[in-house]
Amino acid sequence: MACRTFALKLEYDGSGFGGSQYQTNARTVQAVLEAALEPLAGRAVRVALAGRTDAGVHAMGQVAAATLPDRWQPATLQKALNAVLPDDLAVAAAIETPAQFDPRRWARWRRYEYRIWNAPTRSPLRRDRAWHVRHHLDLPVLRDAAALLEGVHDFSSFAGPLAPPGVSGVREMRRVELAQTGALLRLVFEANAFLPHQVRRSVGALVELGRGKLELARFRSWLDEPRSGAAGPAAPPRGLCLVAVMYENVRFEVGDEG
Amino acid sequence: MACRTFALKLEYDGSGFGGSQYQTNARTVQAVLEAALEPLAGRAVRVALAGRTDAGVHAMGQVAAATLPDRWQPATLQKALNAVLPDDLAVAAAIETPAQFDPRRWARWRRYEYRIWNAPTRSPLRRDRAWHVRHHLDLPVLRDAAALLEGVHDFSSFAGPLAPPGVSGVREMRRVELAQTGALLRLVFEANAFLPHQVRRSVGALVELGRGKLELARFRSWLDEPRSGAAGPAAPPRGLCLVAVMYENVRFEVGDEG
Repeated sequence: MACRTFALKLEYDGSGFGGSQYQTNARTVQAVLEAALEPLAGRAVRVALAGRTDAGVHAMGQVAAATLPDRWQPATLQKALNAVLPDDLAVAAAIETPAQFDPRRWARWRRYEYRIWNAPTRSPLRRDRAWHVRHHLDLPVLRDAAALLEGVHDFSSFAGPLAPPGVSGVREMRRVELAQTGALLRLVFEANAFLPHQVRRSVGALVELGRGKLELARFRSWLDEPRSGAAGPAAPPRGLCLVAVMYENVRFEVGDEG
Repeated sequence: MACRTFALKLEYDGSGFGGSQYQTNARTVQAVLEAALEPLAGRAVRVALAGRTDAGVHAMGQVAAATLPDRWQPATLQKALNAVLPDDLAVAAAIETPAQFDPRRWARWRRYEYRIWNAPTRSPLRRDRAWHVRHHLDLPVLRDAAALLEGVHDFSSFAGPLAPPGVSGVREMRRVELAQTGALLRLVFEANAFLPHQVRRSVGALVELGRGKLELARFRSWLDEPRSGAAGPAAPPRGLCLVAVMYENVRFEVGDEG
């Protein structure tokens, strides 16, 4: 049967998902998407995802690959999926790709955003999208430390316990930025790839620094002398969003970054 | 018993509330707040609210008034309430006011924001906070019409069926503004007071105009020759947020607008 392979840009609210990747006992992005694709393909469809997101982590630019019978076109596939997918998951864009497209291996850059609601009082309207930190944060200190994360480093200290042992922790972080709008802090991380829990542990460490509970020298030592899982604690998942996955030759629309 | 009166600035996610005002068969902001206040006061407490918000409508600057025994201070009251209030409701600020404080009658200006997600595809992360309009909107036309709403007008055409008959529909709208950030449109309305459903019906009419389904002359006639409930349809509640209520002599903090 003649087939086409599609790249699907996914947006989801992670609050109701037990993560992106298939698990037997949880509602996952992969399982929900595969269930929606099956009747369209007339057979079981296995999807591959660009990045693994944990339970509670959101996405505006997760990328999935799926191969379907060639009667499907990107626009009609996107509409058909959005008509049946639940409220908390949507296909934001769809394009046809080469059959070999591997959304994880082909990814050149990944961008995550972590949101912190830094105020004495919690914010009901942001409760699922930001980590509430009520303590005063020294933003210049936090910004200086964030800048240390830029460049090529072994980030093993920032990896969670799920990081596979014996695999290099060297990644290229091309951008770490802090933006402030009132009480809302946004930390953007852009790297060629991330270790498991790397963003959440980096944010956890940056917040400890900003609160004055962690010395900059110690933070720096985690980069200079990597020790698996030394840094942390991990910031909660609800503040994290996979904003974009960028490819060399796969672009969802003119001007699109992811 | 000696008492103090407090103004409480409330933030809530309206998704889980059947509106702000007490009703027998719904979870309301008023009922939840009164239930949290009762053990603090050692007796039933009746609260008054500045503005009536419908089921699904959010607030970042609703204002409540409550009178409690005078052992309470604003800061301790705020903390005690936030410790027991549910996740979707919080006291963002608290101050002491004169005993006569009436949050509705004393209000000088009210500001609402209405959010529209104007894109072909729905947005899971914004589904409870914005109205998804998939059609192309002519923003210059929409902006011109929005400007017509500014000034002193009889807004009866934009009132919903709940508007009390025989009461003047004249209000002073000092600001209507449209801001665009990508696919997200934000309409800000600021007036001395609003008729029931006025913002949602104004937005509904503006969207019809932007889609080319309504003539500007007809829209103008609703202002020039008010006919109760003529304009519409009402935009859905989830896009609406009561952002601020402003007073002459009641300010929550230095530099605070509401």
